[in-house]
Amino acid sequence: MLAARYIRGVERQLNAVSFGRCGLVVKRDARDVKATLQAVLTCLGGLGVPVVTDLDTARTLAPQLTAVPLAELSAHCDLVIVIGGDGTLLRACRAVVPAGCPLLGINLGRLGFMVDIAPGAINEVLPEILAGRHVEEKRFVMEAEQNRPDSDNSLGLAINDVVIRHPEPVSMLEFATYADGHLISHHRADGLIISTPTGSTAYALSAGGPMMHPASDSLAVVPICPHTLSDRPLVLPASTTIRVEVSGRDGRGAIVTLDGYHNTTLASGDGLTVRRASSLLKLIHPADYDWYGILRSKLNWGREKPAYQTE
Amino acid sequence: MLAARYIRGVERQLNAVSFGRCGLVVKRDARDVKATLQAVLTCLGGLGVPVVTDLDTARTLAPQLTAVPLAELSAHCDLVIVIGGDGTLLRACRAVVPAGCPLLGINLGRLGFMVDIAPGAINEVLPEILAGRHVEEKRFVMEAEQNRPDSDNSLGLAINDVVIRHPEPVSMLEFATYADGHLISHHRADGLIISTPTGSTAYALSAGGPMMHPASDSLAVVPICPHTLSDRPLVLPASTTIRVEVSGRDGRGAIVTLDGYHNTTLASGDGLTVRRASSLLKLIHPADYDWYGILRSKLNWGREKPAYQTE
Amino acid sequence: MLAARYIRGVERQLNAVSFGRCGLVVKRDARDVKATLQAVLTCLGGLGVPVVTDLDTARTLAPQLTAVPLAELSAHCDLVIVIGGDGTLLRACRAVVPAGCPLLGINLGRLGFMVDIAPGAINEVLPEILAGRHVEEKRFVMEAEQNRPDSDNSLGLAINDVVIRHPEPVSMLEFATYADGHLISHHRADGLIISTPTGSTAYALSAGGPMMHPASDSLAVVPICPHTLSDRPLVLPASTTIRVEVSGRDGRGAIVTLDGYHNTTLASGDGLTVRRASSLLKLIHPADYDWYGILRSKLNWGREKPAYQTE
Amino acid sequence: MLAARYIRGVERQLNAVSFGRCGLVVKRDARDVKATLQAVLTCLGGLGVPVVTDLDTARTLAPQLTAVPLAELSAHCDLVIVIGGDGTLLRACRAVVPAGCPLLGINLGRLGFMVDIAPGAINEVLPEILAGRHVEEKRFVMEAEQNRPDSDNSLGLAINDVVIRHPEPVSMLEFATYADGHLISHHRADGLIISTPTGSTAYALSAGGPMMHPASDSLAVVPICPHTLSDRPLVLPASTTIRVEVSGRDGRGAIVTLDGYHNTTLASGDGLTVRRASSLLKLIHPADYDWYGILRSKLNWGREKPAYQTE
Repeated sequence: MLAARYIRGVERQLNAVSFGRCGLVVKRDARDVKATLQAVLTCLGGLGVPVVTDLDTARTLAPQLTAVPLAELSAHCDLVIVIGGDGTLLRACRAVVPAGCPLLGINLGRLGFMVDIAPGAINEVLPEILAGRHVEEKRFVMEAEQNRPDSDNSLGLAINDVVIRHPEPVSMLEFATYADGHLISHHRADGLIISTPTGSTAYALSAGGPMMHPASDSLAVVPICPHTLSDRPLVLPASTTIRVEVSGRDGRGAIVTLDGYHNTTLASGDGLTVRRASSLLKLIHPADYDWYGILRSKLNWGREKPAYQTE
Repeated sequence: MLAARYIRGVERQLNAVSFGRCGLVVKRDARDVKATLQAVLTCLGGLGVPVVTDLDTARTLAPQLTAVPLAELSAHCDLVIVIGGDGTLLRACRAVVPAGCPLLGINLGRLGFMVDIAPGAINEVLPEILAGRHVEEKRFVMEAEQNRPDSDNSLGLAINDVVIRHPEPVSMLEFATYADGHLISHHRADGLIISTPTGSTAYALSAGGPMMHPASDSLAVVPICPHTLSDRPLVLPASTTIRVEVSGRDGRGAIVTLDGYHNTTLASGDGLTVRRASSLLKLIHPADYDWYGILRSKLNWGREKPAYQTE
Repeated sequence: MLAARYIRGVERQLNAVSFGRCGLVVKRDARDVKATLQAVLTCLGGLGVPVVTDLDTARTLAPQLTAVPLAELSAHCDLVIVIGGDGTLLRACRAVVPAGCPLLGINLGRLGFMVDIAPGAINEVLPEILAGRHVEEKRFVMEAEQNRPDSDNSLGLAINDVVIRHPEPVSMLEFATYADGHLISHHRADGLIISTPTGSTAYALSAGGPMMHPASDSLAVVPICPHTLSDRPLVLPASTTIRVEVSGRDGRGAIVTLDGYHNTTLASGDGLTVRRASSLLKLIHPADYDWYGILRSKLNWGREKPAYQTE
Repeated sequence: MLAARYIRGVERQLNAVSFGRCGLVVKRDARDVKATLQAVLTCLGGLGVPVVTDLDTARTLAPQLTAVPLAELSAHCDLVIVIGGDGTLLRACRAVVPAGCPLLGINLGRLGFMVDIAPGAINEVLPEILAGRHVEEKRFVMEAEQNRPDSDNSLGLAINDVVIRHPEPVSMLEFATYADGHLISHHRADGLIISTPTGSTAYALSAGGPMMHPASDSLAVVPICPHTLSDRPLVLPASTTIRVEVSGRDGRGAIVTLDGYHNTTLASGDGLTVRRASSLLKLIHPADYDWYGILRSKLNWGREKPAYQTE
């Protein structure tokens, strides 16, 4: 490593670590993905970087590439390049993060919080990044566990959030929350979101939570449509272990969802435990990465006119 | 130190450090303060602990005590005992925190977030605490600085929050915010709150900010009544240096207020810089201190009925 | 009618209309209901007022009473007395409101927004009300309709609200809203609440909607956890016909729920129309009825301490 | 009147009432106003419509026009044309509304909620409107009154809102609110906004109030940064008389501001009464006026991308 400095709590490394082999994960069913995929392959080919992909991408888009199951991808590369949206990158994370493999996101024409390289910038940015001139951002992720009377059941990693809800669309969930074993409160709400800083600009934001800088060493606990008006979003140290206990009163249990995709049914009386995982999400960004700039762009700050003016 | 453990990110020390000399700061103009003050003095006298107080308290309530200016109090004691509300403790902090002197708060019949010892518990709790059986909680505080074209002017410490507003009651402030030199956004709002976790349950909560556990290593940036609806509360690492630049367009400048008390006028074009101070607020609590319990009590969780019920 | 005056937009009649026959609807599965039921029956018996009940109540609690199906109850009485919570009254409304029969609510020890007579006040209040010394409050209710390509399907009355959601617990609904045929907006959200003033203190309040006085001639359109931060609650004239069109993109349709109980599945491409019904909910209150007082009580205003204090 | 129909509760008249004489009020100190002013004058001249203006506009922009004091303008014309923003129109309203004179707003390149005619549309739209092909929208406005122990003092009309605040920028106001003489609640807050539907998209929206359709026969009572979290926005019938009583405890009184411009100081113990005025604001719009379309445009709905996407 030639240089390292901390800016805004994000580790910003401009280093000489080049990535020798790249994995490629591409959004399923995306239109207009072929030109972007071809641009990436041409760029990597020109740099002499070998490419491996997951079976799904190979089958639908790139049969010419060496393919392995997504779960094994990180074993065959130094960097996973995702072409798609934040959702595609989220899904790749679940397979790639435990092995410590870094990821880089190329969006399909629409900036994401994590997929921040535009297709038109591939030829300019990708060689720089592969040559080691980039920013590596380390973000904490969470792991969730279902607690049954007789056993605990790991639910795996959550990059964005863990959501618990009533199994029926319009029903109130009664539950209690605990932080490191201490009661936070009893709640009646549509549900609860436990969010990383990464997830704070996603569903938690819709439910009234704060936007958290990715380097914040905090998590957010955000009730969804709580009955009690003082039941407001909480920010807790990232080291806090959160436990949710669902009231067994209506006998319906709850649904736990990780990152919006992976559903598990909790029986009445089951518990849910969420804690910071030992793995870190390593996101590779161009050297001029600016989270605030992405925030402004995503929320239309500046482009958006104020709702009203006084003159 | 005999024992130290971390619970919920808060440093919880049950140690043998006894406090040899106590300073005493009492709320100005409080009714019913005399019985509480007498109980404290009787308890400390029984323990053989010498007591010193500030000039204000001596003049109005306790002429029999040795008195020094508030700014010098920490030089004459190992622990400052505050009798009053959170506001009284806030004011004592400004004088006591820079010297590293710990504080302990006795409320006047109404629990505070920081003054968490009830008058009725004095005889039970105070001897325990003075004997070293207590929790010491270290909270970060902020310092603010006025930036003029030719010089910078320290505004001192903020325990809760730094607020910037238009000098007139019903006028919009136009300003830009920067985090470690990077533009966050341009804002049109009544003003802006920059809050520690300690201040997150005070004014920032009224303005829509999240409640932050005192051990959260994060600060909150909360716009007050912003014109742009996506201008929502931000949580940033506590290490972030925040800079606010007031637009000079209307030539009226701004008012900066620390902890609701200390006002400074900014001219148009002046800047405001807020960063974590090197001093720490050291709060002494009884051994069974539970921030979540205080939160529940202050917000009437549990005692409060939900706003509606379905049956 | 001897006297009628308007106070706060609520029709307040102190009149000589005595109610000759009473219907009785009692909460299912409620504990401690027998004493309250007995007190009501004794009071009505003493006044010589004949009582009829619905089959459910007769079967579980009062086999000695004449019983008819709930849907026919209003044909056999001048006033329906509900013993239970707001939810029990809501369910009775659906059967009773179309016939124009007024209702009166006795709570089971816990004040409701609509069931505002305490069990301990039965002997004092009930004779007064039956003798015509009461307030009659007329509230508008809504009716909902499922719009299919080939036909429209009435979903009946909603006293509180019509809620549309994705059929799965953690999934975003894409839909468009129209007011009297004019596009309001395209939305991405958990769902949408269309609420009467009566429902404004129930689910709509949890989702961020305003509290609306029952006499407000307005309805509220409240998105649930909207992705777009400017997608805020709307208040529209009560005469507005709202139409919701669910995007067919994910092919999953939506669930429509009236007053939290009555579910209907919409297929992709179906529409939902909500408009003010021609029926009115007639609520009978004691002569000293004060909606603001109920609001203060339900929200703990006054009893609740402010979240923080400055001294 | 040839035709009248109600759409969305707004009176939509396509009638033959031509406006014979026009008043002209132009934004002070606006750049680029001359071309728009000239376009309006040329159009009106071509139609043979005589024009009168207020002294301020005449002095700064149009010395060739007949000028009268703004307060007398409505006596000399059938329609007041405002060139500027919503703020300019608000100020003209105060002078023009009591006489029942309708207003029409031409924006200076930036759409307003009330100034909805673009400069480029002047030649197309203005002749149509003057010929009677337009929509007349009648909106209620409020009047405010200062209540002193010995006398009441009218504060005049408020088109948007009446705001009461502490006289100092960062100080809490303690006050009680009454609706038609009935206590609503005791409040501790930065202040209070009482807003018409017209004002609901202005300051009240920033403070968390709902957006209200101009035809809603309701007003909003919105606390500003309330200490009690359940102190949420209220919607009340427009006929409600609101009274605010400022606690005299800190002896500082309050500032009352109408439409953001007109300030009055209340002494401690003074009251404030706000009620619907007998005057109506009559706004003239093009025949294709669509409030929802303006709302979408002002809030960037549709143009704004959602804050996040799931793919």
